[in-house]
Amino acid sequence: MKKTNPPDIIIGRLPLYLRALHRMADTGSLVTSSQELGEWVGISAAQIRKDISQFGEFGKQGTGYNIQFLTEKIREILKIDRVWDVAIIGMGDIGHGLARYQGFLDRGFRVRLAFDNSPEKIGTKIGDLLIQDIAGMVEKINSAKIKIAMVAVPANHAQEVADDLAKTSVRAILNYAPIRINVSEGVHVQYIDPATHLQWMTYYL
Amino acid sequence: MKKTNPPDIIIGRLPLYLRALHRMADTGSLVTSSQELGEWVGISAAQIRKDISQFGEFGKQGTGYNIQFLTEKIREILKIDRVWDVAIIGMGDIGHGLARYQGFLDRGFRVRLAFDNSPEKIGTKIGDLLIQDIAGMVEKINSAKIKIAMVAVPANHAQEVADDLAKTSVRAILNYAPIRINVSEGVHVQYIDPATHLQWMTYYL
Repeated sequence: MKKTNPPDIIIGRLPLYLRALHRMADTGSLVTSSQELGEWVGISAAQIRKDISQFGEFGKQGTGYNIQFLTEKIREILKIDRVWDVAIIGMGDIGHGLARYQGFLDRGFRVRLAFDNSPEKIGTKIGDLLIQDIAGMVEKINSAKIKIAMVAVPANHAQEVADDLAKTSVRAILNYAPIRINVSEGVHVQYIDPATHLQWMTYYL
Repeated sequence: MKKTNPPDIIIGRLPLYLRALHRMADTGSLVTSSQELGEWVGISAAQIRKDISQFGEFGKQGTGYNIQFLTEKIREILKIDRVWDVAIIGMGDIGHGLARYQGFLDRGFRVRLAFDNSPEKIGTKIGDLLIQDIAGMVEKINSAKIKIAMVAVPANHAQEVADDLAKTSVRAILNYAPIRINVSEGVHVQYIDPATHLQWMTYYL
């Protein structure tokens, strides 16, 4: 389908378009324009059209984009027209917040496994999710064939966890630990770091 | 000092450079190059040089960047050569995680106020931080002259909180609620949304 690989920065914008499209659909809208979508996500209409045209002809000149159709197409492109199982490593406050987060299931993700090293937490449940001993992590992730992990352990344990994940089926890591982790080629890492976001905004204050 | 305003996307990369420079300094390095910095943050050396040169001449041809000097300059540009007081609104799992987060103080931020609407939480403490009744939020934020808020309330309360924050000194909001919020001109908003990050990575799986 793809002629060339679109730049990573464009891929990174597609989830933002998707989120805006969901909100528009929630308000009962059926069609949108690159102008409207642009206002929702804070990107120029021209850039929106350019980004979307990388993947095909999804809009009609003069009539704009059908919201449901464009939503389905972006979900296909991002491969979230299915449900991905996810493991959480580290069940502190952040891990608990992720386990209870309501925004995953309707956006392509299901938290399937949770691990911690604390004897007080191992064996307890968050809803239906059992917190298991991190000592069995490699085996359990592999037998569930899980490809996505969210790492929410303290910074001084993050590399160790990443090294263990390298022995598993995991190919994408969302890292909440405030430290860079080294992974082997073919493993994708994204970071969530509140201080980085705050520092971006102070420039404008 | 500035001739023209640098694009927002460049401002957004400065915190990433800063994080990399901190890690390099931690390992005992004194100087770095645009190549090395680029490898740390996953950006080309040419782009790094272009970004940094927007703000002045901070490196020397052939000898690279002095890590401490560049760190200080970026901290000045981002205005984090001081400590910003921050308020947390919503003390569920995420709010608790933010209150306990160790990565704020040495990066320019101090959590000064915390609010919730739950009678069980109001009056309790996280370390030295007292959780206060959200009913008094506007007044307390104003008298502390706080400019930055992190919103970690459920999605259906986020806009209401944003509307109340509009009556305060807050000019930058980091929103963890999985919903877009409307703010008045001059208020900056950034979103932290784990599903968006996961959707970015599934493309490559």
